[in-house]
Amino acid sequence: MKKTKAHKSVKAGTSGALGERKLIQLIQSHLSVMPDLPVPFGDDVSAVDLGKGRVAVLKTDMLMGKTDVPRGMSMWQAARKAVVMNVSDFAAKGVEPTALLVSLGLPRDIMRKEVEEIARGLNTGAREYGAYVIGGDTSEASDLVVAISLFGTAKRKELVLRSGARAGDIVAVTGFFGKTAAGLRLLLDGYAASKDLREVLLRSVCMPNARLCEGLSLCRSGALSASMDSSDGLAWSLHELARMSNVGFVVDCVPVADEVRRFAEFNGLDALELALHGGEEYELVVTVKPKRWADAEMAVKVAGGLLLPIGKATRDRQVILEVNGEKVPVEARGWEHFKSKI
Amino acid sequence: MKKTKAHKSVKAGTSGALGERKLIQLIQSHLSVMPDLPVPFGDDVSAVDLGKGRVAVLKTDMLMGKTDVPRGMSMWQAARKAVVMNVSDFAAKGVEPTALLVSLGLPRDIMRKEVEEIARGLNTGAREYGAYVIGGDTSEASDLVVAISLFGTAKRKELVLRSGARAGDIVAVTGFFGKTAAGLRLLLDGYAASKDLREVLLRSVCMPNARLCEGLSLCRSGALSASMDSSDGLAWSLHELARMSNVGFVVDCVPVADEVRRFAEFNGLDALELALHGGEEYELVVTVKPKRWADAEMAVKVAGGLLLPIGKATRDRQVILEVNGEKVPVEARGWEHFKSKI
Repeated sequence: MKKTKAHKSVKAGTSGALGERKLIQLIQSHLSVMPDLPVPFGDDVSAVDLGKGRVAVLKTDMLMGKTDVPRGMSMWQAARKAVVMNVSDFAAKGVEPTALLVSLGLPRDIMRKEVEEIARGLNTGAREYGAYVIGGDTSEASDLVVAISLFGTAKRKELVLRSGARAGDIVAVTGFFGKTAAGLRLLLDGYAASKDLREVLLRSVCMPNARLCEGLSLCRSGALSASMDSSDGLAWSLHELARMSNVGFVVDCVPVADEVRRFAEFNGLDALELALHGGEEYELVVTVKPKRWADAEMAVKVAGGLLLPIGKATRDRQVILEVNGEKVPVEARGWEHFKSKI
Repeated sequence: MKKTKAHKSVKAGTSGALGERKLIQLIQSHLSVMPDLPVPFGDDVSAVDLGKGRVAVLKTDMLMGKTDVPRGMSMWQAARKAVVMNVSDFAAKGVEPTALLVSLGLPRDIMRKEVEEIARGLNTGAREYGAYVIGGDTSEASDLVVAISLFGTAKRKELVLRSGARAGDIVAVTGFFGKTAAGLRLLLDGYAASKDLREVLLRSVCMPNARLCEGLSLCRSGALSASMDSSDGLAWSLHELARMSNVGFVVDCVPVADEVRRFAEFNGLDALELALHGGEEYELVVTVKPKRWADAEMAVKVAGGLLLPIGKATRDRQVILEVNGEKVPVEARGWEHFKSKI
């Protein structure tokens, strides 16, 4: 179980008032635990032992029209994104996706053309990452729902969990942050940007990519101690890795995308805030055994990607940003859902 | 892909206007087909080859608050039903469910108590059939969504598809029909029934059971040529088996539940209509090789169930009801969604 998305206004006794993590803990507390579960609750994916060292890997996450599809995103893009957000979790564990099923909830008045766009978006997303859509179901719904179930198999010992980071490990990411957060502010809050900048930022919202090649290569290298994706924001991922691994992090460099610096400057926004507390950004956040750093770097390089060290895991269980000798705690804030802004 | 549920009023150019089967065909026409797919599109489940004669079996179906949870059904029952409707498809193919994931869409104002009920309902449903809930995700949603992904493994050659029926095969079912349709009319349309009758009919709506033991035993017996569940109504299932197997059926006996006859008589309704065109009823509809009838009967008996022959598969591709020498075509009508009545 992963965290639910943030609520803005809440009533006492409701699930919103409970808070995200407690809601999930509450649900888990009522579930019987499968014996010999290869991946614990709370990691990016779930798994079932298949014997002989192999596991079936499963992931399900849904995209909702009202909360996950901002104005300006096409149905094709929304359906493709629904696939990407599930593939990203496989990428973080080093698992190749094989097949996916889709449960589609369709509003009664959705147009035939839009349904075709959704079908094509699902197929494109699946084929980009080597998977096939092999089945599903449709239901009538009051809002668009695209619930994806992703399936793959992996060697049990090659799965990289969230819980393996040790003090001294290097924490690293596969790209620069903040473009999606900036893009959403462009789309939803009326901020401004030059045409070129606008294109880059909106592309990051509407055409996200999962770091599958990087994730597969990194996990196979054996150099990682922990890994997860950054779909709920960089800060949230750091806190999750810290919590699940019983460590902390001192981050000495947040890789803010150039475009985000320019956008933030132009609009009087905080670029660091956009990079740390954004979300819907599908980079990997990994910890690397210090002696294996060169192997990890090479693994990402051969996959055609980047690996940027951003700090170190520590015994002290806090997540700290240390810039120019100044230490500031990084808040465990995930991305703010944009529903209330639509 | 299975059929979508029926719409009542539709606008031109919308998915509703397209009709259920055409909508699914439209979606499928945009999907690349995985090579060596063990189960074709349109069957109860999907599958992926695992090598050495084994397959991973997957199913996803979602329950929506507004359309699938009538007044009078608790959150616990709704969550359990979401599991049962997926297990029923596994039952029809003879596959044991191992694990399930859940994507939960929760309205902002859902109460903590209700979330706990949902968690307990999911767990109960899973454990009743030997499976475990091993993960999932929660999102904010405008309506309750419970999207279940079910996983299991099976021997490829033991899967019983919808497409294997041959002329001369005996078509049979695992129980009596119409109770759910009658129960929904009680709940939603204000029809009347005695207290005892009411209890039985509502139980069939709120506490459905999947015929897993019967399905496993029947499929392992090797006596079946085709199988599917009756979740969209007996008539719909007969037409689906006919279409996928290129046969027709002559049905000489529709097993109407006693309670349904009494309910229909009291309320001036047609018991046969309730039994044929109901739905959300999780019996199995199977075809049996004539020489293996005794084996099929024994397989269900040892599983503690019933196998009721209702007719024969024919070369002529129609579905006909023949009672007292009179032949009437059975309409390919599935169950009518009750959303518009709530």
